[in-house]
Amino acid sequence: MASYSRALTRFGAAATRLSVAEAVRPYANFATAAATTTATTATTSYATRPVLPSSAILSSARGPVSLSRQFARTYADAAAPVSKKKPGKIRTTFKWLWRATYLSLFLGVGAVIYNGYSDRHPEEQFAPDPEKKTLVILGTGWGSVSLLKKLDTANYNVVVISPRNYFLFTPLLPSCTTGNIEHRSIMEPVRQILRHKKAAVKFYEAEATKIDYERKVIKISDNSDIKGTINETEVPYDMLVIGVGAENATFGIPGVRENSCFLKEIRDAQAIRTKIMDCVETAAFKDQDSSEIDRLLHMVVVGGGPTGVEFAGELRDFFDEDIKKLIPEISPRFKVTLIEALPTVLPMFSKQLIDYTESTFKEEHIEIKTKTMVKKVTDKTVEAQVTNPDGSKSMITIPYGLLVWATGNAVRPLIKDLMSQIPAQKESRRGLAVNEYLVVQGARDIWAVGDCAVAGYAPTAQVAAQEGGFLARLFNNMAKTEALESRIKELSSNLNLKPGNTAEITAEIEGLEKQLRRVQDVKPFNYSHQGSLAYIGSEKAVADIAWLNGNVASGGKLTYLFWRSAYLSMCFSTRNRVLVALDWIKAKLYGRDVSRE
Amino acid sequence: MASYSRALTRFGAAATRLSVAEAVRPYANFATAAATTTATTATTSYATRPVLPSSAILSSARGPVSLSRQFARTYADAAAPVSKKKPGKIRTTFKWLWRATYLSLFLGVGAVIYNGYSDRHPEEQFAPDPEKKTLVILGTGWGSVSLLKKLDTANYNVVVISPRNYFLFTPLLPSCTTGNIEHRSIMEPVRQILRHKKAAVKFYEAEATKIDYERKVIKISDNSDIKGTINETEVPYDMLVIGVGAENATFGIPGVRENSCFLKEIRDAQAIRTKIMDCVETAAFKDQDSSEIDRLLHMVVVGGGPTGVEFAGELRDFFDEDIKKLIPEISPRFKVTLIEALPTVLPMFSKQLIDYTESTFKEEHIEIKTKTMVKKVTDKTVEAQVTNPDGSKSMITIPYGLLVWATGNAVRPLIKDLMSQIPAQKESRRGLAVNEYLVVQGARDIWAVGDCAVAGYAPTAQVAAQEGGFLARLFNNMAKTEALESRIKELSSNLNLKPGNTAEITAEIEGLEKQLRRVQDVKPFNYSHQGSLAYIGSEKAVADIAWLNGNVASGGKLTYLFWRSAYLSMCFSTRNRVLVALDWIKAKLYGRDVSRE
Repeated sequence: MASYSRALTRFGAAATRLSVAEAVRPYANFATAAATTTATTATTSYATRPVLPSSAILSSARGPVSLSRQFARTYADAAAPVSKKKPGKIRTTFKWLWRATYLSLFLGVGAVIYNGYSDRHPEEQFAPDPEKKTLVILGTGWGSVSLLKKLDTANYNVVVISPRNYFLFTPLLPSCTTGNIEHRSIMEPVRQILRHKKAAVKFYEAEATKIDYERKVIKISDNSDIKGTINETEVPYDMLVIGVGAENATFGIPGVRENSCFLKEIRDAQAIRTKIMDCVETAAFKDQDSSEIDRLLHMVVVGGGPTGVEFAGELRDFFDEDIKKLIPEISPRFKVTLIEALPTVLPMFSKQLIDYTESTFKEEHIEIKTKTMVKKVTDKTVEAQVTNPDGSKSMITIPYGLLVWATGNAVRPLIKDLMSQIPAQKESRRGLAVNEYLVVQGARDIWAVGDCAVAGYAPTAQVAAQEGGFLARLFNNMAKTEALESRIKELSSNLNLKPGNTAEITAEIEGLEKQLRRVQDVKPFNYSHQGSLAYIGSEKAVADIAWLNGNVASGGKLTYLFWRSAYLSMCFSTRNRVLVALDWIKAKLYGRDVSRE
Repeated sequence: MASYSRALTRFGAAATRLSVAEAVRPYANFATAAATTTATTATTSYATRPVLPSSAILSSARGPVSLSRQFARTYADAAAPVSKKKPGKIRTTFKWLWRATYLSLFLGVGAVIYNGYSDRHPEEQFAPDPEKKTLVILGTGWGSVSLLKKLDTANYNVVVISPRNYFLFTPLLPSCTTGNIEHRSIMEPVRQILRHKKAAVKFYEAEATKIDYERKVIKISDNSDIKGTINETEVPYDMLVIGVGAENATFGIPGVRENSCFLKEIRDAQAIRTKIMDCVETAAFKDQDSSEIDRLLHMVVVGGGPTGVEFAGELRDFFDEDIKKLIPEISPRFKVTLIEALPTVLPMFSKQLIDYTESTFKEEHIEIKTKTMVKKVTDKTVEAQVTNPDGSKSMITIPYGLLVWATGNAVRPLIKDLMSQIPAQKESRRGLAVNEYLVVQGARDIWAVGDCAVAGYAPTAQVAAQEGGFLARLFNNMAKTEALESRIKELSSNLNLKPGNTAEITAEIEGLEKQLRRVQDVKPFNYSHQGSLAYIGSEKAVADIAWLNGNVASGGKLTYLFWRSAYLSMCFSTRNRVLVALDWIKAKLYGRDVSRE
């Protein structure tokens, strides 16, 4: 069983590229200690920051109008006639600061309103020329949506097919499990995205069940609860982009699928949220058995990648900040255990950050069990094999209330089926092998992005997004190339046959050919790793960020602010950004909602 | 089949008291036409209102500080030296208005933050004296929570039992079905409510399965997904309040339970929200059959009470404001039909308001089918019997995509079982018959409130809330009475036996007895109808409000503003209020979320 951790972040980790990161480690500035110290200062200044505007209110209320000017003078005379100028200066500064504050507030609100308005009032769309090629995109995850975002849809008849009619901002999924963020704040309707493209795009909410590679046709099926008389059909394509992602891998371990929760889709996060509160309420049931309370309040997370680590941290926060206050009688018995088969958690991070994470988890009473391989799961226990420090192996049984399985990707049946149709894909195991232009090896007119493609990178959101962006540029270029080629062909075929200025036409052809060479010169896909981020609980985060040619590693509360601002800026739309920010404020102000539903 | 409509509003309708309202109808000021006209003005002024602060910014940015005073003078000199005073006055007025605006904004934000802070930092609770009587409250709906809100929990050992660990603000449930309001905005965790009581209250998330009236014991069972080894137990009581509500009635019509959605709990609203989008996406499926598109986009609502009417209105809004923009190709085929067995919708409202609702629905293309009784439901059709204007009857078959059943209450099995134990309840059919103090007839120490009690009023939130409040006063009084009685007993038993000032003690006893008489003089429960409210779509609402000794009926856009402010003020907590207001702003700004999940 190869346990591998998946960085859900767009700055997600490239586990396979770790060696590169290791090589530049000497340049790394390890800022953990510094960050922790400065974090305290930062928190203080953060806390005092609101004082500025409020004292500014006072000064503003005192000063500026003619009516109160009189009062200001009297005050100045009576109190300190010698230092007449200084308070005036300070007051002026305050006034300006105050004005700057509210002006920027107004501009901000104005920008949000304007953005909302243009969101709701998109321009008229035109239908693309039916003569153009049909480009079918499967999936609405990071890869497909990044492609859609940058694709000029006027060049193709674009059809998007996905069983999910929204894009999900997966990096914040662990925050949804405790209600720190509401699930709809990180969902963006595909319909909304498509409606804002220049040319209309078709969307079918359906599962692609088979790609007929010979006939260039996709079979789709509506597998939601409500079905029409037509619920299976075929969609022909000229070009196909596959971005269907991967499914959860259980590595054949018995009981995992039946008893554990995954953390991949929004429904998973909602199910976990309900189950956490179910465990709590069941533990608080009248005369509950003492050992049973311990079991119910024991939450086990399998997988030490960013998803597992962030979920463990969020869980701890939820109990410490909310459950403890509302249900004090049971909260001391709450326990989180993180199980990882590898020797460390967060293997894609710097050694110092791993140590920092481990020590922070110790403070938070989150137990880390590394070198522990789950062998069997029952409805109330996890059985695992531990490799002891002396190399010997022993079996342990861990009773749990909630088990979250945050590790492993498996190939989807659709992809397996396609791979079996293409002889060149016989050797590939983990997905569709693609070439340097993301073309599926051995296939014509099929590209693959994200977790279903094997391009030599880790299956992270960051890789998928860059791949999608690359394909958008590729397709936009291809359309330009075709337009230029047909124009050249037209000009050259008429040359010297019809009356006209031959020299001028020849010059035009030369110019077009120059353009063509420039457009055709597409460099192969090259992944540029931006860094890795993970939240580790108690308002602390760790970050390994690519910086110049090196790597900056930092951990602590300041890094958490960076984590928040990075994720906020990465949100798909301004709408998502505003909603996530409001959720954070809401959770800070009112706590997380403990209603079970 | 007696179709009866349920007013979910706290100002909900008392169908049984209609005659009273009818009697005072002459005093009613029917303001529909006026409201509609003024509404237009109101909308305009609403739109122009924000201009005030923004022009105030300009003036403020121009004027008040010493640096810009110079500029202001120059401006005044150059532009209009004659009217020097007037612009100054206007400017001053603007400045003050602007200042008032931002000061009130700051105060508002400050109040919300303070409220949030005290929400999250409740005072220490003490455990009540174990010698005190045990008061068990079943349910967390309007009746039980209103009782809890006003009950002095220090007087009893209070135990709350409910399968739902939150209170649901049911009047806004129809708005949840389209995403106008997010479901968690109208939920308030019971744990939060109980944590703010002076003395600690126990809460068990469990279903009461049997009330053993002879042994004074309740059997409870944890029927959620996660169960502990102890998942069934007994809770003894000295006093019991039953507020478990009612369940959905299908009147024995075949197919209703299997094929339709109810609209009573938060899960119902979520299921409807998912199904609406499922119908839309299935209708937009590739090459969907044309008649099937019509079926899928036909939403049928059974029940012409406020819930059904509000849901129909919200649905129409959702399509007109959001779906139309995002999926224009199918939206013209969307249709809503409202089925009601009685001759009119909203039978608890004034005749003029019923007419107004019907004409508004006509404008909104919502078809109303009155005098229509559903006889059978299949997975795709509703079969109903229509009474034609000539009195003849005919059967119609209506194909539907979504069917919402918003009518009818049935007695819960727990209540049925208790009624079968008490001989006096034999005649009662619709729930536990109670006396004028809400004591269950023929039982000792059992009270009932809300939809499970038959007290002669309509099963509305308004009635349940008033009943809960009445019981709180009753129990607080009973505790006071007991304390006074025991003090009197103590004083009188020692009188003349121990040395002391006999005259003084006698005077004290007399004083206490006077107090006792005052406290004991509890008037029977008397329901005071506040009025009925319903939203009817296109930002219009109807309201029948009790006013002095008469009744004010109004409908239109202004009434919608009243509807909003009334519901906002009725929300359980400031947290709910803030969240609902934010949701309204969010829906206005960004539209409703069309993601299906």
